[in-house]
Amino acid sequence: MIIFKNKTARGYIMFKQFQTDIKMSKDEYEKRLLELRTELIRTQYKFKDYKRPMILVLTGLDGAGKGDMVNALADVMDSRLLEVATFWQETDEEAERPYYFRFWNSMPMGGKLGVYFNGWYERTIRKYIDGDDTENIFLDKMKNAEKFEKMLALDGTVIVKAWAHISKKEQKKRHEKLANKFDNVPEITERANWYYAKYDKIVASAEMAYKTTHTEFAPWEIIDCSDKRYSQIRFLQIILDSMKKALEDKMPKGGTTPTDLITFPDVLGSTDLNKTAENYKDELKELVTDIKPLAWEAYEKGISSMLVFEGWDAAGKGGCIRRLLRAVDLRLSKVISIAAPTQEELSRHYLWRFWRQVPRAGYMSIFDRSWYGRVLVERIEGYAKPEEWFRSYDEINDFEEHLAERGVMLIKFFLHISSEEQLARFEQREDIPWKQHKITEEDYRNRDRTPEYIDAYNEMFFKTNTKNAPWVVIPANDKKYARLEVLKTVNKTLEKMLKI
Amino acid sequence: MIIFKNKTARGYIMFKQFQTDIKMSKDEYEKRLLELRTELIRTQYKFKDYKRPMILVLTGLDGAGKGDMVNALADVMDSRLLEVATFWQETDEEAERPYYFRFWNSMPMGGKLGVYFNGWYERTIRKYIDGDDTENIFLDKMKNAEKFEKMLALDGTVIVKAWAHISKKEQKKRHEKLANKFDNVPEITERANWYYAKYDKIVASAEMAYKTTHTEFAPWEIIDCSDKRYSQIRFLQIILDSMKKALEDKMPKGGTTPTDLITFPDVLGSTDLNKTAENYKDELKELVTDIKPLAWEAYEKGISSMLVFEGWDAAGKGGCIRRLLRAVDLRLSKVISIAAPTQEELSRHYLWRFWRQVPRAGYMSIFDRSWYGRVLVERIEGYAKPEEWFRSYDEINDFEEHLAERGVMLIKFFLHISSEEQLARFEQREDIPWKQHKITEEDYRNRDRTPEYIDAYNEMFFKTNTKNAPWVVIPANDKKYARLEVLKTVNKTLEKMLKI
Repeated sequence: MIIFKNKTARGYIMFKQFQTDIKMSKDEYEKRLLELRTELIRTQYKFKDYKRPMILVLTGLDGAGKGDMVNALADVMDSRLLEVATFWQETDEEAERPYYFRFWNSMPMGGKLGVYFNGWYERTIRKYIDGDDTENIFLDKMKNAEKFEKMLALDGTVIVKAWAHISKKEQKKRHEKLANKFDNVPEITERANWYYAKYDKIVASAEMAYKTTHTEFAPWEIIDCSDKRYSQIRFLQIILDSMKKALEDKMPKGGTTPTDLITFPDVLGSTDLNKTAENYKDELKELVTDIKPLAWEAYEKGISSMLVFEGWDAAGKGGCIRRLLRAVDLRLSKVISIAAPTQEELSRHYLWRFWRQVPRAGYMSIFDRSWYGRVLVERIEGYAKPEEWFRSYDEINDFEEHLAERGVMLIKFFLHISSEEQLARFEQREDIPWKQHKITEEDYRNRDRTPEYIDAYNEMFFKTNTKNAPWVVIPANDKKYARLEVLKTVNKTLEKMLKI
Repeated sequence: MIIFKNKTARGYIMFKQFQTDIKMSKDEYEKRLLELRTELIRTQYKFKDYKRPMILVLTGLDGAGKGDMVNALADVMDSRLLEVATFWQETDEEAERPYYFRFWNSMPMGGKLGVYFNGWYERTIRKYIDGDDTENIFLDKMKNAEKFEKMLALDGTVIVKAWAHISKKEQKKRHEKLANKFDNVPEITERANWYYAKYDKIVASAEMAYKTTHTEFAPWEIIDCSDKRYSQIRFLQIILDSMKKALEDKMPKGGTTPTDLITFPDVLGSTDLNKTAENYKDELKELVTDIKPLAWEAYEKGISSMLVFEGWDAAGKGGCIRRLLRAVDLRLSKVISIAAPTQEELSRHYLWRFWRQVPRAGYMSIFDRSWYGRVLVERIEGYAKPEEWFRSYDEINDFEEHLAERGVMLIKFFLHISSEEQLARFEQREDIPWKQHKITEEDYRNRDRTPEYIDAYNEMFFKTNTKNAPWVVIPANDKKYARLEVLKTVNKTLEKMLKI
């Protein structure tokens, strides 16, 4: 990262070349618009059938005419396949989640174009310029942006980023015009003032952003906006070209595939399954009584949590969750049972549905199975291709890192039982009226895959057991012991978060 | 409404009988729980296939143990078919929309049970008790609740409402216990204090709520919560019984069917289609320039708007919308094109997807076709049964009333062209490259149904042309004239809303 040292002080070099004196005549503009319109509509329909989502990030200098560019887009494309998301003020629901929550939440479905006005860059640049973030933090955030874009691109999303550029002189001219027109709307004039005063710094930061995040996965395009007609045509052309490139399947191919050569530490094999609960009833009561006020205090202090339950079939996830709900009642918590994805979920990155479940400040989401399905059932049943699930370890760590940064308390439980205990529970279930529905042919089929699951579990522990999001493996042959352990961990972690 | 006069002063009568000395032994409790568990799970699976949603509103006195009741539910039912929504604090996104927005947004899908904690009653009662609302306003709100419930029930939603009741003496006891336990969570103790101080008034208001909204569509059940075990069993029993009743198809059948005897005033026939634009270019430019700052001012002042575009195929809705976007750009507005409903939408009341599109304060949603589809295409193509679309006029007026109450600016445009003009435009479209996709066999088929559409339009104008949400019929044989008229109306209405 040394290469950007003192970049701000030295000022911008690269962006200078985009301040030209280009002019487009009205005739030329109308001719090009007509051509583009036909081509865009046609390409858009092909893109719809292609079923991949496209994200266009539009950011740049104030007064460059970004609004007009987007409106030009609405003029010539089918608005049913177009979604515009503007990111300026965060709502309180957004502010209580990690920064990328709002961007995940606006993700277009396959076949659609999502225009991300300001995208994830504008606020980051502003914070850096205002001195709220140091240069190192700024560069870290650029790194996050790059990772985020790469992840989406490898999953099939077409991403293009456009920076709308004008010269300082031109900005001044437009700024004065705007001030006259909108003197009754302080939000606009204040914003324009800020932009004008910081022109040099903004451009230098944009150049840093460009250099750190201009990748084959998500390239930047700089649009010279000196002339409004030219910039609109250029903008449309960029979209058309990106769609066409994607349709020709010149998409970046990414991800390595796993090798079978590595074995991972046998976490499960070294777990002592003989542990039993001593004094269940009293301990249970005490733990529930202890957790109750802690959960409410977490609510008051705005500390949210996400608890993940993974484990063998019949390991007792449901039972643990129910005991937990006695303490953290359903007004504060939400149980999210992960089943097969819906059509809406399938048409987006697989993490999309989990990002949507990040709780608001003070609330708890309890996951009965989770995003780890990607490297477990999806891996083993072949629902995800090897290059897909293999890159997920990084994506998952990244997701959990975003949660930790926002202060979310994350605990990942793995309930471990022996193969014999599992069989005994399956057979027992068939005799209990309200459990019969829980036992199907599939459960027995899954048992045959036990060795594959052991490999997947061990790899998962090894690769995703991070400082901020550790795995808690719980011996669960004795159900009562497991329940107490879960509650103890929740209790301890809440106390730590609340610094009691 | 006379019957409730002075109810508050006279105090409660009916609810007294629910303060009993009932006690349930632990053995009895466990026996009943076991029976209910089996039956509930089985019934839940049948209900899943029945594909209707169920809403259970749980409200009542503080300290009655509502939390425990809901948690008991999570204990014995399949949590994948259960959704708990708690309504206490409004988020800012909710506060900027009509009151019912959050309830629409939490609507369970068909086959699921949605538990609405506090539902739409609790806040209304609190506001009345606190003197923020007069008795008349309170009764109006009850009327709204009744209408809302009836609408959902007639559409197939199973609704039950439960009031958790305890005596004043019992509340005091529980209140003291709570205060000791949660002295570190002010939100809880303050709430409990409020409830305890206002006991008599709350119960009297609840009785009014009961009497005004206890209908065959959405009955109330009062749960005696003196004994915790008994109340949990009673609560589960209510749910089981309601599901069973629904499965036996003892659902309220509602809605009358239309009669063909009435003819409505011929609004379209009396529209002068010969109007043309005089000075298009200049007027357009002027209107766009005028609207721009008005739209930003509306944004600043938090005034949101919803513009509906209905009209004949090829009447020029898209063109009008595009001109409008020049003035109110895509950062403030959103075009919502209404196509056939998705699976997710079909499994809920048809107004669900429109409620979700109510804009935040300051923003504009532009509907290219709208909720009027129910009484137009759905009526004519038979997608909605006669008793369904026929009751929609009331439901639509009601929806628009909620919008008006929240201060949303609502304009409904109808673009009218002659049948000859329509044919000419269809033929022309086939020659324009970017319009070819817009013309299909279906358009010609729809033309054959012109007389039926005229009837449907005239009935729609007659029944939904309300003071707060009037129809603006625009002669659109001359496209330019229509576009100017749309912009003029928007301009005028914005000025009125902004009181310039």
